[in-house]
Amino acid sequence: MIPLNEKLSGLQPSAIRSFTALAKQTPGCVLLTLGEPDFDTPQPIKDALCDALKSGQTHYAPNAGTQSLRSAIAAYETSRGYRCTAEDILVTVGATGALYTALTGILNPGDEVVVPTPAFPLYESIVKAAGASYVPMDTSQDGFQLTEKTLSAHITPNTKAIVLNSPNNPTGVVYSRASLDALKVAVLGKPIFVICDNAYIQLAKGDCPDLSRDPQLKEQILLCQSFSKPYAMTGWRAGYLAAPAWAMERLRLLHAANVACVPTFVQAACEEALHTDVSAMAQSYAARRSYVCSRLEKMGLSFPKSEGAFYVFAKIPEADSTQFCTRLIREARVALVPGSCFGAEGYVRISCCCSEEALRTGMDRLEQFIKERKV
Amino acid sequence: MIPLNEKLSGLQPSAIRSFTALAKQTPGCVLLTLGEPDFDTPQPIKDALCDALKSGQTHYAPNAGTQSLRSAIAAYETSRGYRCTAEDILVTVGATGALYTALTGILNPGDEVVVPTPAFPLYESIVKAAGASYVPMDTSQDGFQLTEKTLSAHITPNTKAIVLNSPNNPTGVVYSRASLDALKVAVLGKPIFVICDNAYIQLAKGDCPDLSRDPQLKEQILLCQSFSKPYAMTGWRAGYLAAPAWAMERLRLLHAANVACVPTFVQAACEEALHTDVSAMAQSYAARRSYVCSRLEKMGLSFPKSEGAFYVFAKIPEADSTQFCTRLIREARVALVPGSCFGAEGYVRISCCCSEEALRTGMDRLEQFIKERKV
Repeated sequence: MIPLNEKLSGLQPSAIRSFTALAKQTPGCVLLTLGEPDFDTPQPIKDALCDALKSGQTHYAPNAGTQSLRSAIAAYETSRGYRCTAEDILVTVGATGALYTALTGILNPGDEVVVPTPAFPLYESIVKAAGASYVPMDTSQDGFQLTEKTLSAHITPNTKAIVLNSPNNPTGVVYSRASLDALKVAVLGKPIFVICDNAYIQLAKGDCPDLSRDPQLKEQILLCQSFSKPYAMTGWRAGYLAAPAWAMERLRLLHAANVACVPTFVQAACEEALHTDVSAMAQSYAARRSYVCSRLEKMGLSFPKSEGAFYVFAKIPEADSTQFCTRLIREARVALVPGSCFGAEGYVRISCCCSEEALRTGMDRLEQFIKERKV
Repeated sequence: MIPLNEKLSGLQPSAIRSFTALAKQTPGCVLLTLGEPDFDTPQPIKDALCDALKSGQTHYAPNAGTQSLRSAIAAYETSRGYRCTAEDILVTVGATGALYTALTGILNPGDEVVVPTPAFPLYESIVKAAGASYVPMDTSQDGFQLTEKTLSAHITPNTKAIVLNSPNNPTGVVYSRASLDALKVAVLGKPIFVICDNAYIQLAKGDCPDLSRDPQLKEQILLCQSFSKPYAMTGWRAGYLAAPAWAMERLRLLHAANVACVPTFVQAACEEALHTDVSAMAQSYAARRSYVCSRLEKMGLSFPKSEGAFYVFAKIPEADSTQFCTRLIREARVALVPGSCFGAEGYVRISCCCSEEALRTGMDRLEQFIKERKV
């Protein structure tokens, strides 16, 4: 055996995927584990892809993305309040590609990345693959929000970036103005990037406070966005990174060494997506979140207020979430994701990406399990 | 400005792309610069994608690729003589993604990667982004083949890998049995990987000698392959990496931190591609290569024997290939890629990825330019 990249020894296989696999082996198990829309991609977006194929868009696109899509993205982001031009945009292989390019592009050995937890495990994998230090910052004692005290306890002279994911996966929590103000005070003018993972921002209830729209922070913001969640396009693998021009120049070079381009016809379809009304899907997730929350309340389980994404993060009456979820699959045939997968024990993530019937059955079974457990 | 990843300062924008851009600004210029098929993707492959879309294949695929496509790839590679199973295969975002995963996955600081030159510039970018040392090995004095002497002059105790690209971009040269034997002797049993970039192997004249089929080297081979070139699918961004099981386990973790998956419907189309007869396109490239070679002979320009890919690498009567190609665009309205882009001065790469008419016009103009230049 020839030695490999030593940094890879710190990476772990996805616990979410392995847990989902366990659930799938259990006959009749209701899966409330999926982190992707159960909806099919809207027809106009699919049609746009087939039209692009028909018109021969099967050749290389520019590495950074087609001019046309980058312009459309820049117009969209500018209308949202993040002022940018097509030159500031890099079309990536999903938000995963945006996060990988952003983090790998800025990190040197010894750098630290502060990540409020619970958090999507991808951040830790990328930070470790880049040879930097992952600094989890527990928010569960602060109502899953950010505070000046917690931030100042975690930010050091080695801090190179902080990841901001609002609405949050796995909690569904939207960071408050106070949280964002605390973060701004902590980083403004310092050599620290704020990685805004906005993957769920279109699935927030009302207008989601968003630090990427703060012009004072513009030079420190690396905005990562995906077409996956709002447009039900997870399998399409398209997203983008927006960055200040001086950084983008070099981030593009890293991206070019990794990805020739996002498929040309996928980019054509993404333009269509930007003009597609997906509010019905967002409303459906909101309704399902409300249903799950009301059921959890009846069960006496607490949870932080979920105002976005399609997750609810429930406190369970056991510390060991992996053991709880394993028993739940085996004894009650309902699968949730243990909080341990996100760096937070004593919780489970409930995904609302399934039919209302599945959600009802899942909640019934969870309720029964909790009841019998108490007896 | 916040400091970025220091390793990125060694990366350069693609000189090929910037040279092509210059040519496109010149009205009436014939472009013989493109490194991608001029053919449209065959209809059955396009149909397979639209069928997959129709059947709702718009959700995440497994990170390593669908079981179905990995099995089909394993069967294909095994039939070619590289024995493997679906577990040894990782579906990647083109051969670019395979090369990035392979090189980044094995390299530690201080490692050296030997690359026979002239070479595709991507290798250098990836090696530098990974923080390792790029060691070009000039083959132009050896008829663009590998020799024991040159190899032993470049392989050191720090050598971690050697890149093998046959048929070669930019020369079109197929490495001889003697070349591969010399390489095998140089690396067998040593802690050195051989990265087989087989992107053009289906476009070789006859049976292309291929080190990846040597069972004695199996544990040292990282095979990178693309759907781009043989199936005219450059814009689709699909390829794969094959590696020994002990290495694949960790390479998959790196890949998962970078890429969630290749688009699900693209993977469905790739299965169709593996069963599509593309021999007519390969024959067309071979005929065009022959035509270009015969024209160059008449002009008195020498070139290594092109037996694959869609390139001819012609020796020019000037050392400065960039200056030669710039003049050629301005004065004769034909664009070729300077050898300097591939680390070899005094040559130009002629691509045969265009209509026969464009090829004829291009060769007429080159001939005239050479003639007038001589006077």
